[in-house]
Amino acid sequence: METLVNLCKRKGFVYPSSDIYGGYAGFFDYGPLGAEVKKNIKDAWWKALVHEREDVVGLDSTIIMHPDIWKASGHVDGFVDPMVDCRESRLRYRADQLFYAPIYFIEEGGNESGLAGYAVIVENEDIQGSLIKRASTIRKAMEKKGAKVDETALTSNIKEFTEATEQERELAWGPDATRAGTLTEPRQFNLMFTTKVGPLADDSATAYLRPETAQGIFQNYKNVVDTTRVKIPFGIAQIGKAFRNEITPRNFIFRSREFEQMELEYFIDPDEGTWPEVYRYWIDWGKDWLKGIGVDPELLSEDVHPQEKLSHYSKGTTDIMFHFPFGVQELWGIACRGDFDLKQHQEHSGKSMDFFDDERKQAGKEPFKYIPNVVEPSLGVDRTFLAVMTSAYQEDEIPNEKGKLEKRVVLRFHPRIAPYKAAVFPLLKNKPELVEKARELYTKLSRRWNIFWDASGAIGRRYRRQDEIGTPYGITVDFDTIEKDNTVTIRDRDTTEQIRLPIDQVESWLSEKIYG
Amino acid sequence: METLVNLCKRKGFVYPSSDIYGGYAGFFDYGPLGAEVKKNIKDAWWKALVHEREDVVGLDSTIIMHPDIWKASGHVDGFVDPMVDCRESRLRYRADQLFYAPIYFIEEGGNESGLAGYAVIVENEDIQGSLIKRASTIRKAMEKKGAKVDETALTSNIKEFTEATEQERELAWGPDATRAGTLTEPRQFNLMFTTKVGPLADDSATAYLRPETAQGIFQNYKNVVDTTRVKIPFGIAQIGKAFRNEITPRNFIFRSREFEQMELEYFIDPDEGTWPEVYRYWIDWGKDWLKGIGVDPELLSEDVHPQEKLSHYSKGTTDIMFHFPFGVQELWGIACRGDFDLKQHQEHSGKSMDFFDDERKQAGKEPFKYIPNVVEPSLGVDRTFLAVMTSAYQEDEIPNEKGKLEKRVVLRFHPRIAPYKAAVFPLLKNKPELVEKARELYTKLSRRWNIFWDASGAIGRRYRRQDEIGTPYGITVDFDTIEKDNTVTIRDRDTTEQIRLPIDQVESWLSEKIYG
Repeated sequence: METLVNLCKRKGFVYPSSDIYGGYAGFFDYGPLGAEVKKNIKDAWWKALVHEREDVVGLDSTIIMHPDIWKASGHVDGFVDPMVDCRESRLRYRADQLFYAPIYFIEEGGNESGLAGYAVIVENEDIQGSLIKRASTIRKAMEKKGAKVDETALTSNIKEFTEATEQERELAWGPDATRAGTLTEPRQFNLMFTTKVGPLADDSATAYLRPETAQGIFQNYKNVVDTTRVKIPFGIAQIGKAFRNEITPRNFIFRSREFEQMELEYFIDPDEGTWPEVYRYWIDWGKDWLKGIGVDPELLSEDVHPQEKLSHYSKGTTDIMFHFPFGVQELWGIACRGDFDLKQHQEHSGKSMDFFDDERKQAGKEPFKYIPNVVEPSLGVDRTFLAVMTSAYQEDEIPNEKGKLEKRVVLRFHPRIAPYKAAVFPLLKNKPELVEKARELYTKLSRRWNIFWDASGAIGRRYRRQDEIGTPYGITVDFDTIEKDNTVTIRDRDTTEQIRLPIDQVESWLSEKIYG
Repeated sequence: METLVNLCKRKGFVYPSSDIYGGYAGFFDYGPLGAEVKKNIKDAWWKALVHEREDVVGLDSTIIMHPDIWKASGHVDGFVDPMVDCRESRLRYRADQLFYAPIYFIEEGGNESGLAGYAVIVENEDIQGSLIKRASTIRKAMEKKGAKVDETALTSNIKEFTEATEQERELAWGPDATRAGTLTEPRQFNLMFTTKVGPLADDSATAYLRPETAQGIFQNYKNVVDTTRVKIPFGIAQIGKAFRNEITPRNFIFRSREFEQMELEYFIDPDEGTWPEVYRYWIDWGKDWLKGIGVDPELLSEDVHPQEKLSHYSKGTTDIMFHFPFGVQELWGIACRGDFDLKQHQEHSGKSMDFFDDERKQAGKEPFKYIPNVVEPSLGVDRTFLAVMTSAYQEDEIPNEKGKLEKRVVLRFHPRIAPYKAAVFPLLKNKPELVEKARELYTKLSRRWNIFWDASGAIGRRYRRQDEIGTPYGITVDFDTIEKDNTVTIRDRDTTEQIRLPIDQVESWLSEKIYG
C-alpha cells in the first residue's frame, strides 16, 4: 500500500489535499495523471450506460438540495455512526471499529487472577496480536510484572465495543489511555456535513452536503419521467461528488470525506418475479465492466448480505468486493431497494410518484399504475481508481539496451484508462527531419487523445519513463521512417515487443487498441 | 428568457433543483439533455487545453480544503457582499443591487414640496421607470393624492444604496416596505458556505466550500512543479464545482449558489514585458474557443476593467461579455494577478513557491529563481451553457410534408456540443428489414457517440422532434437502402437539406462534421 501511495504522489496521480498546509485528513487531490485516469474511468462508465444503452439517461444534480430530501430519505435521523470519546486522550473512535477483550493474568505459581480489566484496540489486520500487545502494555501499567497475560482467555472473548456494558466500560483501557474507564458510552454521530443556505443563519437555513448522489436521482425521477420518453424498465445514471464526515477516514482514498460516486437507479415493475433477475444482471454487468477497464478479475469476489442484516425495505444486497492492498473491501454495492425511496418522497413532497405503464395497460396486466421498484448499483470513483491502480501496478524485469535484466515498475493500465494513450518520440532530438515528422504525428494523434511528447534522452530511458506512468505504446520516428519506408516503431509496454507500422495507419491501429 | 427557461425544463435540459419540494433558490439540476450538453462543453475545454496543448496539465482537487487556504487567499476577510435587511418585510437585499432617489412632489397649484423621502428599488432593466412607479405608490401611502411626483428630480439623482447616509436611510422606503426607515445599514456578508469537518463542532473545525476552483490550483502548484516536467510558461487547468451563498441568486443558472467553473492558471515569468502579450493571447483564445463550440460571436464583447477598479496586485482584467436574454453580462474573466496568490500561500504555509528556471539560468538571465506571475482565464460552465443555449435557440419556418410553411423551434448546437450527434430512423416501424438495418447502424455509431433511436411516427415529425433538442443530423434507412444501393438519407437540421450517403461512410462523414 505504501508503495502505491508513494508512487501516486511522486508521479502526480494523487496528492494529499492542502499538502503545503500539512494536509487535511480525509481529503485528496488528483494530480495531472490521476485526473486523467479518474476522468477516463468516469467517461467509460457514462459511455457504457448512458450512450451505449437506450434504457438509461444521464443526470447532473446539485450537491446541496432541499433539506427535506434528507428527512424523506432517512438520512437526517438514521445516517449515523456510533462514536466513542476518550476523556483522557481527547481522541475519538468509531465504536464499531473498536474491539475489546477481558484481561486475566497468570500469576507466579500458575494461579489465575480474577478479571483485571479490558484491553481495547482499533480494528486492524491483526486484532488478536494487537490485543495481546495492548494487554502486555496494560500489564506493565498495572505493575503486574511477575504475571503473564492469559492469552487464551484474551483472544477467545473478543467483542465489538458497541456491545460493551457500563461495567465493562469502567474497566476498559482505551487504545490511547494510560488508565481504565476513560471511554464514553457510544453516541450516534450524523455523518452528513451541514451548512447554512441564504443570508439567515437560523435552523431553517440548515442544509446538507449530499452523502450520496442517489437522492438527487430520486428527487428528479418525476421530472425525468415527465420530460423524456422513458419506459419501464429504465435507469437514471449520475456521477458526482458526495461527502461524509467520517470519524476516522482511512486507507488512503478508500474512505475519504469527499469522494465521487457513479450511481445508477434502475426502475422496474413491482412484480415479485422481476427484481431477482435484474439484480443478478447488474451484479454481472458490474463485474464485466470492471474487467473491461482493466480491473483484475482474480481480485474480485461477491459478498451477499445476509437476510437478517438487510433494512426492512430491502430485498437483497450484494457487494462486489475487491482485494485491495489493505484487505478485501467493498467496491460496488448492488441493492434492491423496493419502492422505499420513491414512496418516501411521495409522502414527504405530496407529489405522486406513480408511473403509468401503457404497455401493461395494453396487455391488460395489473397494476399499470404503480411506484416502480428500484435496483441500485452504486460505485465509488475513487475506489475504482484504487482498484485500477492496484490491478495495474507491477514490478518486473526487462532487458536494458545491453541485454541485461533490469527491474522496472510498470502500470499495466487498459489503454482506455491510461492517462496517455501513447508517447511519440523522435529518435534524436537534434535531427530536425526526425523531430518534424514525429511532431506531425504527435499533433495528429493529439486531436483525438492525450498523447505524450518526449524528445530527450536515450530511447530506452524514454520507454521506461512511460512504463512507470502506464503509457501503453511508445511510437518512435527513426531514420527508416524518413529515409526508407515511412514506417514507425511501436513498442508495447507490457511485452516490450516492437512492431513497425506505416505512419498513416497509426491512428486507426491505436483506435482499435483503445476501443477494441 | 422565459421561453428558454421553459424549453430547458420541458425538454429535460435544466430542472429547478428539488422541484417536487417546491424548488430551492439558487440551485438547478441538469436533466438528461442538459447533462450531455454540459459534459460536452467541459470535455471540449479539457481537450483543447489539457490534451491538445503540451504546456497545460490538468488537476482535480477537493471542494473542501484546509481552511488556512482561504485565509491566505483573502476570502475569509474579503469575500463579502454588502447586505441590507428590511425590518418590516424581513427581506434581505444586496445593497449594491438597491438604487434610491429623492422624492419631491409638485403640489396642486404648482408649488414644489420639500424633500418627502426616498424611493428604493431593486436593480433591473428599467431603473428609472421602477423608481417612478415606486414613488407613485409611496405618494398614495403618504396620502398626497393631489400632488404629482417630480419625475425630473427623482430620475436625475439616482444612487446605489451603499452610498446612503443615516439620514437618508431614515427617510428611505424599502422596495417591499409600507413606510420609511425600515432598511438597515449595509453590513458585510461573507459569501462562503461554511461547514464543520471532523467529529468536533468547535471553531477549529470550521471549513469552507470553495467559492472558486482557483485556490485548489495554487495550493497544488508546488506538488505539480515537483512531480511533473512543466517549464515556465505552463498552465494548470481544473474543472469543478464552486459555491457562493449569494444573497439574491437570479437570472436562472447565471448566478446560482452552486455552479461549476473551468479555470486555468497560466504561470509566466515575472519580466514586465511578458504578461501583456499572454493576457491578450488568452482573451483571444477564449473568444475563439467560444466560437468553436457554437457561441454566436456577434453576441460577444470585451469589458476592460478600469485601472482604478483593480485590486492592488492586479495588472489588468478583461471580461469577455455575452449578450444574454437579460442583458450583457460577464462570461469569462481574464485576470493578470501578478504573483499575489502564490506569495500569499508562501507566506501562510511557510513553503517556498520559487520556480527554478533552468533555461533562464543557461541563458544567464536574472532572475532564474522566482515566484511566477499568473494569468487567470476563469469561465463558468453554467454561464457557457446559457450562452450556448442562447446562441443555439431559433424560431424559423420550414415547409412541412405538404410544402406548407410551419413554425418550428430549433436548437442550432454545434455538433460537438449537441446532446445527440445524430438520430437514426428506420423509415417504417413495421418492416423488419428496415428496422434491422437501421439498428445495425445505430449500434455502430453508438459505440462512438450519443445517438438517438426513433422508430415511430411520420418521418417529418421525427425530424422536427430532433430539431427541438438540437440533433444536427437525422439518418433514415429506407427501401433504397436495402433494395437498391445501400445508401441512407442524411437530413441537415439547419438547412433541412437531404443528401444520400453509402451506409459504410456515415461514421467517417459524421466524425468529420463533429471534429472538423
